[in-house]
Amino acid sequence: MSGDRPKALAFDVFGTVVDWRSSIIRELAEFGAERGVERDWARFADDWRAGYPAAMDRVRSGELPWSTIDVLHRLILDDLLAAADLGDVPDAERDHLNRAWHRLDPWPDSVPGLTLLKTSFVITTLSNGNVSLLTNMAKRARLPWDCVISAELFRHYKPDPEAYLGCAALLDVAPSELMLVAAHPSDLRAARDAGLRTGYVARPLERGPGTRPPRVADGEFDVVAQDFVDLARRLGVATP
Amino acid sequence: MSGDRPKALAFDVFGTVVDWRSSIIRELAEFGAERGVERDWARFADDWRAGYPAAMDRVRSGELPWSTIDVLHRLILDDLLAAADLGDVPDAERDHLNRAWHRLDPWPDSVPGLTLLKTSFVITTLSNGNVSLLTNMAKRARLPWDCVISAELFRHYKPDPEAYLGCAALLDVAPSELMLVAAHPSDLRAARDAGLRTGYVARPLERGPGTRPPRVADGEFDVVAQDFVDLARRLGVATP
Repeated sequence: MSGDRPKALAFDVFGTVVDWRSSIIRELAEFGAERGVERDWARFADDWRAGYPAAMDRVRSGELPWSTIDVLHRLILDDLLAAADLGDVPDAERDHLNRAWHRLDPWPDSVPGLTLLKTSFVITTLSNGNVSLLTNMAKRARLPWDCVISAELFRHYKPDPEAYLGCAALLDVAPSELMLVAAHPSDLRAARDAGLRTGYVARPLERGPGTRPPRVADGEFDVVAQDFVDLARRLGVATP
Repeated sequence: MSGDRPKALAFDVFGTVVDWRSSIIRELAEFGAERGVERDWARFADDWRAGYPAAMDRVRSGELPWSTIDVLHRLILDDLLAAADLGDVPDAERDHLNRAWHRLDPWPDSVPGLTLLKTSFVITTLSNGNVSLLTNMAKRARLPWDCVISAELFRHYKPDPEAYLGCAALLDVAPSELMLVAAHPSDLRAARDAGLRTGYVARPLERGPGTRPPRVADGEFDVVAQDFVDLARRLGVATP
């Protein structure tokens, strides 16, 4: 990449660090097996995820008060459970299922790559997931963050500029000293517009086999990497 | 301790996790050696620390705007450097010296004890130190926090109740499910008043050899431990 290296790397999490789709399908299948019901759990997982931008917009518009992603996930889940005709699901069971988003598995390169990157950079989350979700996820998946930064701390979800600039401020670095790493061009473009550097890592399996990753123009982002170990190499970290 | 175990432990940092006094004296002595001056650096360190409650009160009273501890440490440092008649100290040098508070060494039991406690509890900082200070400190000293929570996130320094309650809220636990661990009874009493559990760990060397640790009445706190490994044992963690 051109210019000096960044001082810190902030990572988008859902899809970039963890494979939300496989993990949520697995949890839904377990839920179904316990209740003795079968549904199209892949479709249910995709619908759950698809409901989340609209739920954030209900907060942005003022229709809902500031809400954590746990709360938004639960609103969407309650609607999906009702639509799936699954009968009475007790609150404790819904809560456990909702916290499936705390139990997402990392992509195979995430922990080795982050461990390498941590030797040269401050590494943090920068996710719309709430602090407790990100903390529980990191503990279970052994993600070696230096700190856990969430949109919750700014009461602004990404892609609002307050989230990117707030992250740089908490780390006490200039926006240009911070690189957002994400698998989603829209997130990276908003970070770039806020003055951050950008690192794109393709996650072609995020939406399941047979789907296409988003298109990225040559030179649109500062670094394009195949995975987190490749990102470390491209950022000049000595890799095995 | 009585009752169920807490879900999460929040640690005071300066004095409880790290030996600020020895570390600051060491950094001041290095600063003096580079400039070829000798002063009573232990006294300088104690004065630097002693200026900090008054500086926080200037923020609480509205005389100063919300300020990170880095900013408050720098205000105090500038006054102490002027009083010590050290001549012109360039800004970059002052800034490096001020960041000595990011480079504090842990007590010998801190990393082994936290590593044990992390197997059974969510462990976080709850310090008046700012996020970047705590993050840099943890990275250097290899403190294995699950997340980094600071008074900065609430714009309320301890012992304001907002700091303790804000920490519980971010972790998504009830105040009674969170234990503050600290070497300072005043911090613990404020946490208890906010509904948290309390763990006292004596740090008799915090203010140097020959000083007395504060008095603690029997039964005043939920757990009293000799160090972090002893705390793990008393909280039921299997220890080596």
